Amino acid sequence: MMDRFISYTIKGTPMWGATDGKDIVDLSPLMTQFPTLRDVFQLNAQNEALELAEKCEISRELTGTVLDIPIPNPGKIICVGVNFPARNEEYKDGQEAPPNMSLFVRFPSSFTGHNSPLIRPKASHQLDYEGEIAIVIGKGGRHISQRESLDHIAALTICNEGTIRDWVRHAKFNVTQGKNFDKSGAMGPWLVPFSNPQQVENADIITRVNGEIRQQDNTTRMLFPIRKQIEYISTFTTLEPGDIIVTGTPTGAGARLDPPQFLKPGDNIEVEVSGVGTLINGVEDEQ
Amino acid sequence: MMDRFISYTIKGTPMWGATDGKDIVDLSPLMTQFPTLRDVFQLNAQNEALELAEKCEISRELTGTVLDIPIPNPGKIICVGVNFPARNEEYKDGQEAPPNMSLFVRFPSSFTGHNSPLIRPKASHQLDYEGEIAIVIGKGGRHISQRESLDHIAALTICNEGTIRDWVRHAKFNVTQGKNFDKSGAMGPWLVPFSNPQQVENADIITRVNGEIRQQDNTTRMLFPIRKQIEYISTFTTLEPGDIIVTGTPTGAGARLDPPQFLKPGDNIEVEVSGVGTLINGVEDEQ
Repeated sequence: MMDRFISYTIKGTPMWGATDGKDIVDLSPLMTQFPTLRDVFQLNAQNEALELAEKCEISRELTGTVLDIPIPNPGKIICVGVNFPARNEEYKDGQEAPPNMSLFVRFPSSFTGHNSPLIRPKASHQLDYEGEIAIVIGKGGRHISQRESLDHIAALTICNEGTIRDWVRHAKFNVTQGKNFDKSGAMGPWLVPFSNPQQVENADIITRVNGEIRQQDNTTRMLFPIRKQIEYISTFTTLEPGDIIVTGTPTGAGARLDPPQFLKPGDNIEVEVSGVGTLINGVEDEQ
Repeated sequence: MMDRFISYTIKGTPMWGATDGKDIVDLSPLMTQFPTLRDVFQLNAQNEALELAEKCEISRELTGTVLDIPIPNPGKIICVGVNFPARNEEYKDGQEAPPNMSLFVRFPSSFTGHNSPLIRPKASHQLDYEGEIAIVIGKGGRHISQRESLDHIAALTICNEGTIRDWVRHAKFNVTQGKNFDKSGAMGPWLVPFSNPQQVENADIITRVNGEIRQQDNTTRMLFPIRKQIEYISTFTTLEPGDIIVTGTPTGAGARLDPPQFLKPGDNIEVEVSGVGTLINGVEDEQ
């Protein structure tokens, strides 16, 4: 069943379509009024698009197609930090758990698509994984209540919120630089439409490196649940269709292991979110 | 002389043009291949555009025209924190000046244009000014050396990097939320093409509230000069045409006064940068 959305590039042309997880139906050539999936969500055309896909011939196989991040041009990517039990303790700074969520921003250029390599930069070899579930905003708004918050979610995807550990502690405040190395993280493989609160409120997140489980938790244990995230973020900024919230990672990143284990070329990183799928990436050195 | 660029909205239509500081020549209807000034910089069409403006009739007066932020759709807005002498001491946290610059990100929606009001939000009355010079990237690139850095600047503008003080200390890390309230800051009035290093390396920045000088310093005294900013930022992210770097504010924000003096409706805030102009905004309460 063509029940998910996907963004990809064919011979240099960015496209979007629907997938059943195995095959792809190209939809962007048929629905030219929507140049990107962001436009589809902006105009609430998800159902129309998936219905059309069911009537079409298969265009191509997913295997071998170069996937982009699911929304290539989001207006904002807002990330929530320190959002699972024991994550605050990992910082060993003696501070109590904060009363409000920590937020930082990533640029789209800091992510690559499913099956493309994370890039370990020349500037540091401390590339680390962070498995997370990400939500895509459908209906925009400001001052959104927790009660109404889930109505603003259009779709879900998976994020490996890859981080350059030493660069997040470069400066007095903020983690901007360590969170924004080009292609140091990944998003994908696809977007699953949101229809049921359980999709975000009871989802397992598992991160594996070379088959070994490194992170495993469930969104029921978030310190700041997704309803609260939407309420808090929309207190200060107007959420727009296609905006992405990356909702926080469980304990167990490589930097916290003893000794720390950072990612290196040859590694295979899988982030699995129940009900969404598995995001897989290798690692390459920056050229 | 039509020597500056300006973005504005006429009857709901976003436009761009050239100005001499008094009159405007509409250029977007004549150069339709460039929907926004970002496209002009991307294709390096600044000189062509200003030459065309000189040959045209005046379209309208600047007075009474609703100005937008100069690049309405920048790919990134990266802000440098704690970048003038005595700014680190203002934090009174006992920490030494950091070895690297502090960076955070603002969304375009956190800014309003010249002569439009800053919005004091319902969530907090601690709205504060920060006068700064902002650079617009022309030629993109990564791993840009300090020596070549200034070749990547296309234009300059002025930023009032307005901040909600209590919200920058809401969480464990990062100032994201206190720096991103809708229309809490301003950018403008226009873009001055960059041609001479002195424009950024020896510029006076003066902030006045209701005519009283609150901040006054010169870019010669930056802890991390603009050449260094471009080098450091391009270590982790590829700079693209139209990207904006907001380069840091002098000491003297209202939060540091004893007692603190925050902005309120009726106030008039001017940020003057020598060689660029003066950005003027009032204050209104969020409706």
